[in-house]
Parts: sequence; structure tokens; C-alpha cells
Amino acid sequence: MSQDRSDSSSKSLSFPEERILLGPGPSPVPQRVLRALGAPTLGHLDPQYVAIMDETCAMLREVFQTRNPLTFPVSGTGMAGMECVAVNLVEPGDEVIVCVNGVFGGRMKDVMERCGAIVHAVEAPWGEIIPHEAIDAALEQFPKTKLVGIVHAETSTGAHQPLVGLADLVHAKGALLLVDAVTSLGGHELKVDEWGIDAIYSGTQKCLSCPPGLAPVSFGERALARMDARKTKPQSWYLDVSMLRKYYVGGGGGGRVYHHTAPINMTYALREALAIVLEEGLPQRIARHERMHQRLRRGLEAMGLSYIPKHSLHTLNCISIPAGADDAGVRRRLLEEYGIEIGAGLGVMAGKAWRIGLMGHGSTVRNVDLVLTALREILG
Amino acid sequence: MSQDRSDSSSKSLSFPEERILLGPGPSPVPQRVLRALGAPTLGHLDPQYVAIMDETCAMLREVFQTRNPLTFPVSGTGMAGMECVAVNLVEPGDEVIVCVNGVFGGRMKDVMERCGAIVHAVEAPWGEIIPHEAIDAALEQFPKTKLVGIVHAETSTGAHQPLVGLADLVHAKGALLLVDAVTSLGGHELKVDEWGIDAIYSGTQKCLSCPPGLAPVSFGERALARMDARKTKPQSWYLDVSMLRKYYVGGGGGGRVYHHTAPINMTYALREALAIVLEEGLPQRIARHERMHQRLRRGLEAMGLSYIPKHSLHTLNCISIPAGADDAGVRRRLLEEYGIEIGAGLGVMAGKAWRIGLMGHGSTVRNVDLVLTALREILG
Repeated sequence: MSQDRSDSSSKSLSFPEERILLGPGPSPVPQRVLRALGAPTLGHLDPQYVAIMDETCAMLREVFQTRNPLTFPVSGTGMAGMECVAVNLVEPGDEVIVCVNGVFGGRMKDVMERCGAIVHAVEAPWGEIIPHEAIDAALEQFPKTKLVGIVHAETSTGAHQPLVGLADLVHAKGALLLVDAVTSLGGHELKVDEWGIDAIYSGTQKCLSCPPGLAPVSFGERALARMDARKTKPQSWYLDVSMLRKYYVGGGGGGRVYHHTAPINMTYALREALAIVLEEGLPQRIARHERMHQRLRRGLEAMGLSYIPKHSLHTLNCISIPAGADDAGVRRRLLEEYGIEIGAGLGVMAGKAWRIGLMGHGSTVRNVDLVLTALREILG
Repeated sequence: MSQDRSDSSSKSLSFPEERILLGPGPSPVPQRVLRALGAPTLGHLDPQYVAIMDETCAMLREVFQTRNPLTFPVSGTGMAGMECVAVNLVEPGDEVIVCVNGVFGGRMKDVMERCGAIVHAVEAPWGEIIPHEAIDAALEQFPKTKLVGIVHAETSTGAHQPLVGLADLVHAKGALLLVDAVTSLGGHELKVDEWGIDAIYSGTQKCLSCPPGLAPVSFGERALARMDARKTKPQSWYLDVSMLRKYYVGGGGGGRVYHHTAPINMTYALREALAIVLEEGLPQRIARHERMHQRLRRGLEAMGLSYIPKHSLHTLNCISIPAGADDAGVRRRLLEEYGIEIGAGLGVMAGKAWRIGLMGHGSTVRNVDLVLTALREILG
């Protein structure tokens, strides 16, 4: 292999050209966060690092609006968060309800089935929300249901799922409520404790504007009781919360028990990103996401473009590709001429939709006005 | 939660004080790699990022000394690499042999059992290596064995497992050879193709001197055939190679099929770290690790300290704590007075061993001489 080696070592590595990330994620990352990422690497049992992790978890609790002690970043990207919650809360043979109205609900169903669950899907057409009545009817139909999984912000369709009041229906039947908040945490109203959510996961690269690599999760008391009552080990060692909590919350004597080496530098970045969220203020940040969505929406609709979901997220704008427009060509011109990334349609919406993300650091007047100007120019 | 918020936002975040990382990992990260980490975040389908990932995978092949097309970094830390290989190669009811002579062999057994495998453990006392004869005898005893898992560099004991010739024994019985190379890749001789290894995983934070957060893996043709013949889906969606390969190697039409959002900035860091490895030259780097190990060993033995394993790694030095020394006190003084991190004993070696890592960027004359000087000073 020595001849190969010299090939690689003789060329210098490219430095990435900056993009304005207005797709479905990752979102633009503030310089402050990129700088934090490059701080000196520490050992995962170093008292300095343990303090940084504790600060990070404390801020995560504020952003999730929860007092759950078991709130921490899983060492993987958003989908690892989904898998972490599933493998810990589901045992083989458990009946669960999964709400499916897009790619991510479909993935949750797949993940649950891989955990050995018997999944009852409550479906709605892509782009629509799941009516609470349909979930209640499924709970009536399947009284052994142990858990209901639902996506708060369906990144594939832009649909914004209402959650207020849902936990009461789910808890009345003795089930747990599990929420996917990948594209809502830090951008939409989301109150884990007040809304009665038992387990939740998100990603860092959406409305928190941190690079991808960690998946914030939070487990409430009911979820803890469910995990403590398990008869089987979770099928994933890497994501086994019974061991992870001895590191993140502390072992019997209060010390930290080594489980695996966490992504140290990513934790620095997440801490910085969360500090930025809390400096802005969560209510102010959520209001900004709403204002920017309205500004973009007015501009798009004035161009004759239409939204696919009736209940649109503020963080992701899913619009129909206008008749005659060249899907890939328009996105390529946005990328090459303007350095703007927007998202293609996913799943059944491939070729039919564009997805414009306005998340975290990317949700600004200048980005909204720029993408509108660029689309006007390109679409003619 | 608003009163909590103001608490967080009013305090400024600490910046980590630099450590000299001479524990079992993470190892010291070069400034070049930390700078690369902070480059602008790209989307995971951006042509620039796909090119960066391709360069990274090409360099990983050189460092693994393999031509396996399916060589890529898993989006998690080293243990996610172990789990990735296990969930893809094992189906429920499969018989496997796992070699256990320390914590990481024990973990591999646990991970395999969680995949539904019937595990036959070939054990050796901690600190010793596993004789190939014992593995051959187990293959005779359990002729249905589909896979043999073994740890090349047992980070908990410092034992350096010989692998040359093992694949012939394993393949003669129709089984696959799976190797844990977390603490050897980039620091010890390791020839995936020449040695006949079918599947291998490592971490970025050891001898590659990149922060933790990715787990390089490589699968050979026999492993691919095994995966293609599966009757069941891998139990992990996040780590399912049948989907991951459509992104890392390309889908049917050569395009990249979205699976999950990879840790973009960590990929920059890994690319830079691999370039540094190849600039130094793999043989030169391996020789440096050996020289530094010998230098440390001479110094430690001159102080009357003794190595636990007979076959010691060059990358990790596991020594007995001398009689009368205060385990935690010595490590605390090293950390507080010298800013040096060394590792405590793990598992049955807790309180009995220290682990001094000389990995990648940390394996230097100045670090060896400094840690010897500091130990002389502290131990008196």
C-alpha cells in the first residue's frame, strides 16, 4: 500500500467553502460554537469535563423545559436518540402505537419493530397531522398498548403536530408518551413537563445550531419506572440507559462510572450552543422562528408558491415545486450561485417538494430575504 | 423555569485547561486537527462533503491496510463500532466464539449476547493473551461457530494479542474473524487484508489522535456475503450496514442515499488526523510507538515498577501500582501538579494497576520523559 500512501500525503486537503444552510439540517453554526468545538480535548473522567457535561445537561433541562434528572446528550446523531429511547422503553412482544405521517414516523415504526415491538400504526396522509381522536381510538382498540410514539415536527413534510392534551389520553390508558422533537427543540414551543411527555429525543444540528453528533434525550419518572421494571436487557449496549445513567447522573456513591468515551469536543460545542439559546431567551427564540416563518411565507405565497402542510412548522417550510420548474436544477443553482442549501423532497415527496429550513442561527431576516430574492431570480 | 435560565445565562462558560493525555484515551489532539474540527459545517449531501467523506474513507483504507470498499466511520464512538459490526454480522441463535481476557472482550460477549448470539467464551487470565491453540480447540468443540471475535489491543490490561495466522484457523472452519482494533489502529502493525480479517472496528481518539466521536470500521468480502445472506434485519436501524453502504459506497446508480446526518465536523477532524498519520508514514509511526514504549519501559523498570502483561502493547502501558502508593492520590497529583492524565485500573484491576497511554500525538520523547520525572517526584 506504500504507493497509495504517497498519493494521499502529497495532496493538501480542501477547506470547506461556507454555505448558508437553509435545508432540513444541519443549520448554520455560529462562529462561537465552532470555536468551542476546537477547545483542548479532555479525558471523559476529568473533573473539568464532568463539570462541563453537568452544565450541558442543566441547560438541556432548561431548553426541554423539564426537571427530569435523566436528561443528557446521547453519543450519536438524532437517529441514535430515537434508537436510544426505543431500545430502553420497549421489550420484545410489547404492543406500541406509532403515529406515521411522514418519513420519521415511518422510521420510528421500523426502529420499534427491530426492538421486537408489535406496532399498531396510526396513519395520516403525508403533510397532515395526526388527530388526537385517532390516537384515542387506537388506544381503545389496542388496550395492551404500552407506549405511543409521535413526531412533533415531521421534517419530511413540514407538518407541526399538536401535542397539548395528548399525554392525558395516553396516560389514562397506562401508556407512555414518546416524542420526536428533532426539528422542534429550541425553535418551537415544547414543554416536556407541562405537556406530560415521558421520553423525548432531539438532535443538535437543527434549532440548537450546533454541528451534528449528539442527540439530547430526556426521560421522566414513568419512563424510569418502565426501564427499572424491564425483564430483559436493552438490545443495545451502547445505548443502555441503565448503564449510561451511572455516568450522566452518577453511580451509587455519587461518582461517575465509566461507560464509553463520549464525543468530548462535541459536548463543548453543545454547551456553547445551549448558552446562546438561553442568552437569547427561549420565548424570544421561539417568537423569532415564528416571525421569520411568517416573513418567508408571505414572500413565497406572493410568488405563487404554496405550502404543502396545512399546519406548517416555523422551522421547516415544505412547499410544492411549481409546475415547470427543474427540481435539481433550481437547487443546484441556489447552491452554486448563492451558496444556499435547501432540501429536496423526501420519500413520497421526492421531486414534488422543496424544504426550506429556518432553524436556530439560520432563522434571520437576511437569510429569508436572500432566499426569496434568489428564488425569484432563478424561477424567473 | 425562567429563574433557572437567568442563572445559566449570567455566568460565562469555562474554557478547558489543557491536559497531557497519557491515559487509555482520548489521546492528545494536534492543533491542526482541532482547527479542522472548526471548519464551516456543510450539509451531508453537499458535493463538497461527499468528497471529504470519500477522501476520509480512502485514507482509512490505507491506515487499515485494506482494499475493502466498505470502509467508513460509524457515527458514534468506538463502542458504536463494536455494536455496528456485531448487529450486522450476528443473527439471533448464531453460535459465536468471543475471546475474553479483559474488559473489552467481556463487553464484546455482552454485545453479542444482546444480538441473540449463543456465545462460547475462550478465556485467559487478565493480562495474558489468548493462545491460538485455545481458539482452534473451541472451533473444534463448537463446529457451528459462525464468527470469532477477538481484541487486538486490550485497553484494560495492556495485552497485545497476536493475530498473524489466526484467520487461517478461523476460515478453515467456515467462520469469520472479527477484530477490535480500538487501541491499535495507527499505533501497531495491523494488516487487515494480509492477515485475513473479515471485519474490524476502531475509535478515533486513540492512536489516530482525533477527538472521540467516530468509529472507523471495515468489512471484507466474506462479511459482505454474510450480511447479504441475512434472514432478519439487523436489530439496529442506526447501524444497519445494508442502508449505510448506500450512503458511504453509493446506491445503485452511484448516487448517495440519505440515511442519517453524520457528524460533519468530526469528519473534518478525522480527515485531518488521517492525513497527519499518512504524512508521517504508517511504518514510521508504528516504529515511533515502539521506541517510545521501550523508552518508557526502561524508565519505569529502572524505578522498580513492573508491567502486568507479558506481551505489552506499545500504545498502552499497564503497570502494577507499587506497594504503599496511594492510587487515587498519585493520579490526582499528576493531574493537578503536572496536568498529566494517566488511567486507573479497570474492572478486576481497579486499585491494582495504572495505565499509561502513549498514543498517536502523545507518544513523544518529551511526554515519556515528563511522566517518568513526575512519577519519580511523586513516588519519591
